[in-house]
Amino acid sequence: MPNTKNYHTSQPDYETAIDRNVPDFPVAEVLDEDKYFQNHEPPSYLPEIEAQIDKFVDFHCQQTQKKVVLVTSGGTTVPLENNTVRFIDNFSAGTRGATSAEYFLENGYAVIFLHREFSLLPYSRHYSHTTNCFLDYMVEKDNKVEINPEFADSMLVVLRKYMAAQKANSLLLVPFTTVNQYLYTLRLASQLLQKAQSDALFYLAAAVSDFFLPSSRMPNHKIQAQPSGKLVVDLEQVPKFLRRLVDSWAPQAMIVSFKLETDSSILIKKSVQALNRYHHQLVIGNLLQTRKNEVVLVTPDEAQNWIRLDDTQKHQNVEIESLIIPAVIQEHENWVKNWTAKNK
Amino acid sequence: MPNTKNYHTSQPDYETAIDRNVPDFPVAEVLDEDKYFQNHEPPSYLPEIEAQIDKFVDFHCQQTQKKVVLVTSGGTTVPLENNTVRFIDNFSAGTRGATSAEYFLENGYAVIFLHREFSLLPYSRHYSHTTNCFLDYMVEKDNKVEINPEFADSMLVVLRKYMAAQKANSLLLVPFTTVNQYLYTLRLASQLLQKAQSDALFYLAAAVSDFFLPSSRMPNHKIQAQPSGKLVVDLEQVPKFLRRLVDSWAPQAMIVSFKLETDSSILIKKSVQALNRYHHQLVIGNLLQTRKNEVVLVTPDEAQNWIRLDDTQKHQNVEIESLIIPAVIQEHENWVKNWTAKNK
Repeated sequence: MPNTKNYHTSQPDYETAIDRNVPDFPVAEVLDEDKYFQNHEPPSYLPEIEAQIDKFVDFHCQQTQKKVVLVTSGGTTVPLENNTVRFIDNFSAGTRGATSAEYFLENGYAVIFLHREFSLLPYSRHYSHTTNCFLDYMVEKDNKVEINPEFADSMLVVLRKYMAAQKANSLLLVPFTTVNQYLYTLRLASQLLQKAQSDALFYLAAAVSDFFLPSSRMPNHKIQAQPSGKLVVDLEQVPKFLRRLVDSWAPQAMIVSFKLETDSSILIKKSVQALNRYHHQLVIGNLLQTRKNEVVLVTPDEAQNWIRLDDTQKHQNVEIESLIIPAVIQEHENWVKNWTAKNK
Repeated sequence: MPNTKNYHTSQPDYETAIDRNVPDFPVAEVLDEDKYFQNHEPPSYLPEIEAQIDKFVDFHCQQTQKKVVLVTSGGTTVPLENNTVRFIDNFSAGTRGATSAEYFLENGYAVIFLHREFSLLPYSRHYSHTTNCFLDYMVEKDNKVEINPEFADSMLVVLRKYMAAQKANSLLLVPFTTVNQYLYTLRLASQLLQKAQSDALFYLAAAVSDFFLPSSRMPNHKIQAQPSGKLVVDLEQVPKFLRRLVDSWAPQAMIVSFKLETDSSILIKKSVQALNRYHHQLVIGNLLQTRKNEVVLVTPDEAQNWIRLDDTQKHQNVEIESLIIPAVIQEHENWVKNWTAKNK
């Protein structure tokens, strides 16, 4: 088969070209968060998710005493019609989330992985979303399928970690597609995680849509064109749920959000602004251009902890998440200590 | 790990709930097809694709004498900003296209598979986009990774077919993401396929967006909210390129398009309308509700050839594409015969 890989390098590279700089919208115009849930139906499968998360949290609170992190990952969609095909999507492969989840597992956490369906998953991420086909890892030998020896050793390392997570029941995969599914599941999970008290950690790496089409204005069938032949889509701002997460859904948990910018001069300012606005515990700031090599952990006291890969680490393909996660865990340990002291 | 599979059955099922019924827009308002290419930049990687397709077509025209089918598959995106993250998407997993491509290969065709990146691919489709993780097919035995014996036999069958296609150089994978990439690649491929004359077949199963945001109106950075906090997206209609494909890009090839409806009473009428409008050779009509079990092949003489799975076939999980493709190939043979007779 001809090589179809090379030109991928010259395709528009969303991974390096995206700009998630979120403008500051007028707060007065934000829809009330609670009203959102009154006006939008929960996903029908939510009771099943509830049972799974509840069992998972109970297991770790009662039997393993592991801390539990909810990692969100991937982009949300905004459907433009009921029962139809068109939707607005936020591009995100889920690399940061899936990679971080692995290092949380390796550092002894139980992980609820709230992810966009078909985005990257912990462990399998090493073999998906490449231009390699699944079957390129296989060969036939003596009338049997075998793993291509070229990949067998590294695959064994990954498989063992994956099997260990399964055996320990320490990874729960919970998918979402739409922003509505995401919001309902996030609220549900945070309420169920109250049982873990300050041992719960939220690591919000998903790319959540800023806008949505309220269900009251969603057509049941395909949107019709205007007489001009044009299509006009008129979207509302998604309420800022981080505020509710902090003040009422998960007040005892530690909450980490991300801030991705393209302009280095405003990164710290924006991170501090987010902390002041939502009153959570940690913002991980990163620049689009360098996000795989450096990030900054910003705390409410405006302390900046820069984490950078050095040249040796870059050369050895060290993943920066292997450094970020221990630093986040350190912050979480401080949070638990303070919380315990306060509630004695 | 807890079972996270069951609730998928109660999630909104796009596969059964979509409605691709395309309203008839006023033709007078359609943008001129040629103007589109004047006003929109080609993807930067197009020369590389051109070299690959050219080599592939030459190989089969000169050395194997295989007929060549271009199968399009999956949905196109419409980016809403340059350099940013938001886009409108058309939902399609690519099942019809990927499955059909396999049966074209089995019936002796060379296949150019023009597909949405990360949508289903021929052969690997059997193991991707399920809720199973890649690693669930593996086990460790004697310190080695092996294929789980439960899956090994069926995987060998698929692997052999995949390897055969690779060895014969009969499958060329060409990805797209945006509607602009799709249109440029379709035009390029059709022009290169002119070498195959009437041996070229177009099987247009992709879900192509009806609307797009002209590059002249695309913001370079994230769309800003209106003072009201709202986001308004104002889209233009995508020109009807099928007309150009038939009359100038690939006048000697046979062209097959799809018509998906929800209302059975209008399926034939709409299919005939499409044939009258674009003057191509075959429409495959199908209803959303039953599209995996029956389709109708409609030709310009308004003949209807219904293809249906009987109960035994349904029970044996026969794929309807295994019946559709031989029927399409029969039509293609007639086309070649007529064309040869006319051009003697």
